[in-house]
Amino acid sequence: MAEKIAVLGAGSWGSVLANLLDENGNDVRLWSNNPDQVAELNEKHTNEHYVHDFKYSESLKAYTDLTAALDGVAAILFVVPTGAIRIVAQQVKAVLQSTDNQPIIIHASKGLELNTHKRLSEVLSEEIPADSRQAVVVLSGPSHAEEVAKRDITLITAASADNAAAKFVQQLFMNDYFRIYTNNDVIGVELGAALKNIIALGAGALHGLGYGDDAKAALMTRGLAEISRLGVALGAQPLTFIGLSGVGDLIVTATSVHSRNWRAGNELGQGQSLKSVIDTMGMVIEGIPSTKAAYELAQQQGIEMPITEAIYDVLYNEADIKKVIPQLMQREGKPEIQ
Amino acid sequence: MAEKIAVLGAGSWGSVLANLLDENGNDVRLWSNNPDQVAELNEKHTNEHYVHDFKYSESLKAYTDLTAALDGVAAILFVVPTGAIRIVAQQVKAVLQSTDNQPIIIHASKGLELNTHKRLSEVLSEEIPADSRQAVVVLSGPSHAEEVAKRDITLITAASADNAAAKFVQQLFMNDYFRIYTNNDVIGVELGAALKNIIALGAGALHGLGYGDDAKAALMTRGLAEISRLGVALGAQPLTFIGLSGVGDLIVTATSVHSRNWRAGNELGQGQSLKSVIDTMGMVIEGIPSTKAAYELAQQQGIEMPITEAIYDVLYNEADIKKVIPQLMQREGKPEIQ
Repeated sequence: MAEKIAVLGAGSWGSVLANLLDENGNDVRLWSNNPDQVAELNEKHTNEHYVHDFKYSESLKAYTDLTAALDGVAAILFVVPTGAIRIVAQQVKAVLQSTDNQPIIIHASKGLELNTHKRLSEVLSEEIPADSRQAVVVLSGPSHAEEVAKRDITLITAASADNAAAKFVQQLFMNDYFRIYTNNDVIGVELGAALKNIIALGAGALHGLGYGDDAKAALMTRGLAEISRLGVALGAQPLTFIGLSGVGDLIVTATSVHSRNWRAGNELGQGQSLKSVIDTMGMVIEGIPSTKAAYELAQQQGIEMPITEAIYDVLYNEADIKKVIPQLMQREGKPEIQ
Repeated sequence: MAEKIAVLGAGSWGSVLANLLDENGNDVRLWSNNPDQVAELNEKHTNEHYVHDFKYSESLKAYTDLTAALDGVAAILFVVPTGAIRIVAQQVKAVLQSTDNQPIIIHASKGLELNTHKRLSEVLSEEIPADSRQAVVVLSGPSHAEEVAKRDITLITAASADNAAAKFVQQLFMNDYFRIYTNNDVIGVELGAALKNIIALGAGALHGLGYGDDAKAALMTRGLAEISRLGVALGAQPLTFIGLSGVGDLIVTATSVHSRNWRAGNELGQGQSLKSVIDTMGMVIEGIPSTKAAYELAQQQGIEMPITEAIYDVLYNEADIKKVIPQLMQREGKPEIQ
């Protein structure tokens, strides 16, 4: 199967997924709004700022022109930051509405839209009308771009309400090191992806404060329980949270010093101010807006989320992390399952 | 609350729990069948072979005499290796039957009895008749003895069919760094504790073979799913597997180079023979018999456990780990939840 596919967003994950699709025999167009990056990809076949010391396929073509990138594609993969997804979707809509092409829409971004708290597939479905596309499919799971670039085995989930679309995406990406499991619980997969970053912030904070592995494993366990509670209240299937996009991604994110969210939590735990952490990171820390979104959703839904509340207080109410985290870990003993 | 409590087994976990109970104000008798170890504990207040560089409470008394250790106790905590639990229970029975004391029975061991595949609370209930004891309670969760010794915060589960007994044990152990959650699913808690060692062996093997964090997180996720399937078939509650004694303990065991099972898997992955791994470890690797027990139980119950089967083939059928593990990780893509 060789398909024409556009990949929108040439950060580490987008560029590595585009390369993988190329390697799988597809005709792939990688779009970025940064002309220097596009030139580097087309001329040197590198993307040094994002994936160090990696050579992209020479047949992978990068574009700044969205209309050219989208021409005749069977699928569009969005891998842009959460904050940019609505604007890029509007641009895609404008291009698609001038053609009669109806591609499958895929996204591999993780987060919730600020203020609206919408999932990214909701944003995409809203902005790209149903007569300009086929189904929306979400890709998520425990996956460091650097490991996929090295062809390390990675297992992820392709989730869609449309089973045929999920299977199409499975076939598109599947190869001997990138293994796709289908799932029809889009809500659970997207919420797991967005909310695990809160727990990664918390696990990093524990590390920065000097706690050990017992405390981190307990926080991850209780964190999984609270994000599942919120997810189920919002319509997710509980089993999804113990799948690849739930506990799998949580493990990779909350135990890895490579995770941006974990590192941000660690620096907060070591006593740095939020402003200094954000300034020195120089990249989006998705867990910070996700904490706000989850906190507000939990309030609306009446769901108890003690870990999210504690991190929210640190991030948004200037609470002292040295007091908040010990209080969190020393709550009253009670039945584990309620 | 000050209670008389006997702790049977003075390995790292038993001796640290005994010290914690002493610190909580109880009158604790730590029993070991090793006179040198008992002398060291009573005279130097150390247990160097098991917990390096740690000073035990001077009020903690160690015994070789089981009758003296059990005299008038309100609770007996078993922390002996799986393979020794039936014999020690028989000795306890003999002592208790000569008195009218009926203590609560607690255990904090992890494994399944060889050949019978019985859970340890079943072994204890069989050997110590109901008229010589109160309920049986299981303690389990993500807990390195070394971290509890350092008073790092640790959250674990006290599970019993008898809710009052679980609450009694909760109160006994609870302090500002050791936090107990009650649970009534004894089957799920004991199976989670025993079976996670299989997944830890697998995660170690992946590491030894050179796989990355994505593959390990995927193995842990799919492993959690398969031990839950077996557990539910044997009568466990599914939610227990996403609790402290399930995913919590799995995270601590399968991501830690301190875990004996992880280390054994790592050495197998690096190409050492099973015999050499066992010889150099010099301690019981509980995951090896647990793999056999789980494999046999899965066959009896008709449960698909691909990870357990792969590890069983390596351990018991001389299968080549370099072939078996890649095959396992490259199974056909399919729906994530079935």
